[in-house]
Amino acid sequence: MATTLDLNARASQIVEAMSAAAATLRIASREIDGGGRFLDCGIKVRGGLRAGVDLARICLGGLADVSIPLGDIGGRAAPLVQVWTDHPVQACLASQYAGWALSEGKFFAMGSGPMRAVRGKEAVLETIGFHEDSESVVGVLETRKAPPPEIVARVAEECGVEPWGVTLLAAPTASLAGGVQITARSVETALHKLTELKFDLCRIVSAQGTAPLPPVARDDLAAIGRTNDAILYGARVILHVTGDDESLQEIGPRVPSSASHDFGEPFAAIFARYNNDFYAVDPHLFSPAEVVFQNLDTGKTHVFGGPRPEIVAKSFWG
Amino acid sequence: MATTLDLNARASQIVEAMSAAAATLRIASREIDGGGRFLDCGIKVRGGLRAGVDLARICLGGLADVSIPLGDIGGRAAPLVQVWTDHPVQACLASQYAGWALSEGKFFAMGSGPMRAVRGKEAVLETIGFHEDSESVVGVLETRKAPPPEIVARVAEECGVEPWGVTLLAAPTASLAGGVQITARSVETALHKLTELKFDLCRIVSAQGTAPLPPVARDDLAAIGRTNDAILYGARVILHVTGDDESLQEIGPRVPSSASHDFGEPFAAIFARYNNDFYAVDPHLFSPAEVVFQNLDTGKTHVFGGPRPEIVAKSFWG
Amino acid sequence: MATTLDLNARASQIVEAMSAAAATLRIASREIDGGGRFLDCGIKVRGGLRAGVDLARICLGGLADVSIPLGDIGGRAAPLVQVWTDHPVQACLASQYAGWALSEGKFFAMGSGPMRAVRGKEAVLETIGFHEDSESVVGVLETRKAPPPEIVARVAEECGVEPWGVTLLAAPTASLAGGVQITARSVETALHKLTELKFDLCRIVSAQGTAPLPPVARDDLAAIGRTNDAILYGARVILHVTGDDESLQEIGPRVPSSASHDFGEPFAAIFARYNNDFYAVDPHLFSPAEVVFQNLDTGKTHVFGGPRPEIVAKSFWG
Repeated sequence: MATTLDLNARASQIVEAMSAAAATLRIASREIDGGGRFLDCGIKVRGGLRAGVDLARICLGGLADVSIPLGDIGGRAAPLVQVWTDHPVQACLASQYAGWALSEGKFFAMGSGPMRAVRGKEAVLETIGFHEDSESVVGVLETRKAPPPEIVARVAEECGVEPWGVTLLAAPTASLAGGVQITARSVETALHKLTELKFDLCRIVSAQGTAPLPPVARDDLAAIGRTNDAILYGARVILHVTGDDESLQEIGPRVPSSASHDFGEPFAAIFARYNNDFYAVDPHLFSPAEVVFQNLDTGKTHVFGGPRPEIVAKSFWG
Repeated sequence: MATTLDLNARASQIVEAMSAAAATLRIASREIDGGGRFLDCGIKVRGGLRAGVDLARICLGGLADVSIPLGDIGGRAAPLVQVWTDHPVQACLASQYAGWALSEGKFFAMGSGPMRAVRGKEAVLETIGFHEDSESVVGVLETRKAPPPEIVARVAEECGVEPWGVTLLAAPTASLAGGVQITARSVETALHKLTELKFDLCRIVSAQGTAPLPPVARDDLAAIGRTNDAILYGARVILHVTGDDESLQEIGPRVPSSASHDFGEPFAAIFARYNNDFYAVDPHLFSPAEVVFQNLDTGKTHVFGGPRPEIVAKSFWG
Repeated sequence: MATTLDLNARASQIVEAMSAAAATLRIASREIDGGGRFLDCGIKVRGGLRAGVDLARICLGGLADVSIPLGDIGGRAAPLVQVWTDHPVQACLASQYAGWALSEGKFFAMGSGPMRAVRGKEAVLETIGFHEDSESVVGVLETRKAPPPEIVARVAEECGVEPWGVTLLAAPTASLAGGVQITARSVETALHKLTELKFDLCRIVSAQGTAPLPPVARDDLAAIGRTNDAILYGARVILHVTGDDESLQEIGPRVPSSASHDFGEPFAAIFARYNNDFYAVDPHLFSPAEVVFQNLDTGKTHVFGGPRPEIVAKSFWG
């Protein structure tokens, strides 16, 4: 696959624009001891919708269009997060997927963003055969704690860059920016599920996705429930793919969230049922509600699953 | 509240872009005798949709995203005006609200835009504690007459700037640009109503709104009816707020237009009933049809009111 | 009509941005022997959604806003192509309409884009009285073959420019970029039909349109069916016009596709019925499903036709 997409350079441009507009975005940008930069998008600062859109664009390596139109869920005004990209595999799997567990002492956060493509150690990066060389790297953390300098040093070391070349951004799950950033993962979730199902990712050409933006929850645990429900019961994804139809019909029913035996209840209830043990939840649950394959070679469309606005409503407003 | 948002500087940038694209926007930009600049967006020129979007962005002090997607109202194709902002109080109350009555001889127009924040004389500006210093100011007038030089002089004097530092823009109510500009007031109307109800405006963090764009009416009086109906019966607003839920539940039912005893008929009929005496109409009527509070602290959502597409249809197409 | 809209200069700017981002857009830009430039947006390269949006913007002479939100058709997630412009006649008829038949040996393609306004030989250009002088011209071809150098020479000659001043772009009907480009013709189709019906085009001030983006078909013939159905049964157009209402009521029923005796079946079936003879199909069929006139002078709205999602569904997914 092409390695000239410059995900980190694109992300860095967005970072520069965010820093320059920090007051407008209600974020805080500061140097980290020992090198590197940190943009707080919702921890000690309030952040906002635009910070969330920019965070989402950074997570997607600058390769996707992200917007937040106002729609309707079950008769109520509800914001949506819409995404489209001509580079879904690179944008979502080489960058947006939160595949890097960063821990140091008591600090722990899942890292996403294009820094992952430079580090290049995750299995999914090998699967898609994508690697990027860059002197500066950008990463996004879903956390309520600012990363300590040791985390920056770790990122620098594992990416083979100097600490001053590291930019990290963060927002908690229960924040405006965090919510937008996570809800922009409709397409990513579909692609990750397809990776798990050993689908040939080279077949995925372009993609479009939408999901309802959940109201910010009272705490991060509750926010994890709602942001998951936004995807599991609210997300609709269109994948423009190549190849044969038989394989799509074969794999399709296993792709949407409804393929999971855990499907049907708000995520918080499922999570509680498993005593809040994330790893006990069926991993096949994590997928959009509706996944549509449009086959560029045969012209056939295959639809699997469908949105469940009543569960979204229960999760968001119940 | 922060006074570094530079509403007038942001608006001035949009003015420059509009002037440079005057032919494309179908507007006319000219110097005013004695100093200052006037951009006619629909009086002697036709104007258009893009001029309306730019006018709306100027009214909002450059702090909001404004778009005009095509939607559906009761089975008919209908344009919408969508707005979102991370600075609703400053964008809407310090700038967009039409709170400055400008009159000179036979000329009368309500003034909105960031010039109001520099003048700083309205009670609402004191309520929100917002003041801006700027050598150049930008204002928007809803009028069918170009402002005379005396109005520019008045604006300059009251804002404490030189006349050459004043830019005024105008469009009639019954014009494409005027219609977009007014229909972009979904969030502003909710915030103004909340101000009247003594709601603590510091609690409002971010906001999103949508309203159907009315067809341009045959004259300004008829246009006042339709643009009001677009808000009163068509606007849906989401406010991301902080604080307790009890106060939201207490104040909420009084916020949407349905809280008014005048609610239920197209505005033109209400207006006629009061012999076209604007001040006889219940001031509590002026609010969006649906107002949703999403509490960032508690995670609770509170919905009040709801759109009434059948009244919108009667007003727009009846 | 104004000739200072610089359609070709606007289009050239978009071309430059596309060339600079060729890898991201998955397109190929190359010099043509003997002068001129060719941007392949879907023939030997894959192209994508963004290339399609840019192609559409070029076709419209840089005078329209084009976006691809995700909507819903009959309960299925479906991308839409939305367009709005304050210069519908110039954007659509002087530029976007595919009115220039370019053939050379075995090569044949219909040409659209602002080069047509410089050539100035079509009757429709005379009707609207629009002509543009430009040293560089931009054209878009719907074709599966790259244009030979003779075509560039022909374009140069007929436009009175040097070959190096010619830029041609192309995408097949059955391609992502081609699909977006064609589906962006909702307003254009309405305007062309109105031209056929001798409507006074000077009355059309601004316009907005939407149509569902069809899934790319297995071949160009099937794609012609679907892209036509997107317009005939899915497109909704709002025209902001001036003048009297009587003429609108008189001409209106003849404007939407439903005015044609061929209306009611997917286009592929109609086409087959006429033995794939394009010229045997009722020319009055080619129009949007719904055409709304909003009269700026009288304030009246006139709606004709309406979308037929069940025929769209049959065409796209049947």
